[in-house]
Amino acid sequence: MSPARLAITAGEPAGIGPDLCLMLAQQPASCERVVIADPQLLEQRAAQLGLRVELQPFDPDALPAAQAAGQLSVLPVSLAAECRPGELNRANAAYVLDTLRLAGAGALNGTFDAIVTAPVHKGIINDAGVPFSGHTEFFAEQTATEQVVMMLACPGLRVALTTTHLPLRQVADAITGPLIERVMRILHNDLLSKFGIATPRILVCGLNPHAGEDGHLGREELDIIIPALERLRAEGMHLIGPLPADTLFTPKHLDQADAVLAMYHDQGLPVLKHKGFGNAVNITLGMPIIRTSVDHGTALDLAGTGQANPGSLQVALDTAIQMIAARRAV
Amino acid sequence: MSPARLAITAGEPAGIGPDLCLMLAQQPASCERVVIADPQLLEQRAAQLGLRVELQPFDPDALPAAQAAGQLSVLPVSLAAECRPGELNRANAAYVLDTLRLAGAGALNGTFDAIVTAPVHKGIINDAGVPFSGHTEFFAEQTATEQVVMMLACPGLRVALTTTHLPLRQVADAITGPLIERVMRILHNDLLSKFGIATPRILVCGLNPHAGEDGHLGREELDIIIPALERLRAEGMHLIGPLPADTLFTPKHLDQADAVLAMYHDQGLPVLKHKGFGNAVNITLGMPIIRTSVDHGTALDLAGTGQANPGSLQVALDTAIQMIAARRAV
Repeated sequence: MSPARLAITAGEPAGIGPDLCLMLAQQPASCERVVIADPQLLEQRAAQLGLRVELQPFDPDALPAAQAAGQLSVLPVSLAAECRPGELNRANAAYVLDTLRLAGAGALNGTFDAIVTAPVHKGIINDAGVPFSGHTEFFAEQTATEQVVMMLACPGLRVALTTTHLPLRQVADAITGPLIERVMRILHNDLLSKFGIATPRILVCGLNPHAGEDGHLGREELDIIIPALERLRAEGMHLIGPLPADTLFTPKHLDQADAVLAMYHDQGLPVLKHKGFGNAVNITLGMPIIRTSVDHGTALDLAGTGQANPGSLQVALDTAIQMIAARRAV
Repeated sequence: MSPARLAITAGEPAGIGPDLCLMLAQQPASCERVVIADPQLLEQRAAQLGLRVELQPFDPDALPAAQAAGQLSVLPVSLAAECRPGELNRANAAYVLDTLRLAGAGALNGTFDAIVTAPVHKGIINDAGVPFSGHTEFFAEQTATEQVVMMLACPGLRVALTTTHLPLRQVADAITGPLIERVMRILHNDLLSKFGIATPRILVCGLNPHAGEDGHLGREELDIIIPALERLRAEGMHLIGPLPADTLFTPKHLDQADAVLAMYHDQGLPVLKHKGFGNAVNITLGMPIIRTSVDHGTALDLAGTGQANPGSLQVALDTAIQMIAARRAV
């Protein structure tokens, strides 16, 4: 296929995002990597890290091409204030949001085949007076997507979440038949259309320990989850469960499946991040665009030190490239 | 040290418990393994599996001695009805409970240094009219222990639970300061006295995703968990957290700790059973006796087939032996 063109947002300028982009650039790529950031910031950070990079102004009219080691395209956005590694500055919050907006617009109009995001700092953006709850919500709104699904993946495991950032005491009431159906349809559809899996097999966790043990440890499996899965199976989906979450993540089950649907955040992500340490990627499903992200934060204390680990950004890029290929093949 | 003497309850006769005891016996042992079961059942099952064993009647007056491959001591209890692998029979429920009672009594009076349990079938015992909610509760009652703590362990990871078999919607209200303090004192004390860890370092999970993110995702960390940990730290305990559960199970944290305290079942056990697949052991803390167990069920369909995996029972035995040594050294 012709080389893909991906937008990489460098994220919070005082964090490790710029570092990771520059470290990533040390490897050649089969695609065009377009970093959206302040070019001066990238030059400064590269000098600090002792990394050689060749920054080429992004030309939307040129054909996307593979890049050699050290090459990056840059879509320039100017910082409002100078940035020192590790020092957050609310004056640069608008800059960060501008990089996201450009990425989203370019993905929607086909300039970019996908977006890969380095970490942003939610707190400093909110401190600057802009309500911002995260990349996922930002791109969902920009793409007018009502429901998105958060999935984390690492080699050998994909975990999607039915509920995400909810206090634990609100989880049980949030699990409804309609929610499970909406989330599962998105997960199923994206496994087909963005991962190229012809017949996705999905393991489903119960809500309660031991998946409720036939109602002895909670009735949500009997009253809500099993009926919802039955309705979805009637549409032809290959769903396994609800299974007890503590035994689901073993080879007997995982070897038979393409993805896991967990009911809530801390049911599915501890095992994913344990297994995928340093190699996990966050994928937003349900949008008309492909977006992957690192699974970690800004690590302000590591910015400019050379100690940051670009593993997750590399996996996020690789995953986006695979998804682009799968989407083209559908 | 002189060889230890351990009781091994063979559990549900129609399940894989007898098989596992016989498979375990194929290895030599540095201790005396006393299987509590019907000797005829063991002979029959050994013949079915094609395993050679030398069953010696248990003699409490003899000194405990190491055992060669194939050797087992047997403390005999008679089945009420003949048993075929895979076929539950409520007539044998009293037999199962008798084996547990003998093990508990022997551990309490010093005949046995520890108890290792193969799986029982709760359903058939209850069907026989005996209220029974599990080994843990049985031994807690027999040893007059008010509060026990469930811990699962595998090479490189120990996870204890603050709450265990509760419907998820009841978990948040069950997490109280006094409960965290009681559970932590038991965990801390047993790491000292039964694991020989001089200064136990314990990682503590938050209740909510991201450990509540400073109150944005739930207040239990601020209102309950952090104050409880502060009180315990004032007693000299080395506690780390509350930490977000999704990033806790990574080397950065695990390398610094001896155990993890999770707030609930599906927060801590999926990662433990993923990591420890086939090698995990269930340990009951807080009792005056040492008790370890397999981490799996009766697997009725595998009984008598030779397909059962004795890995977890072997680790349960090895763990109990290590705990005996640590307790003797204190």
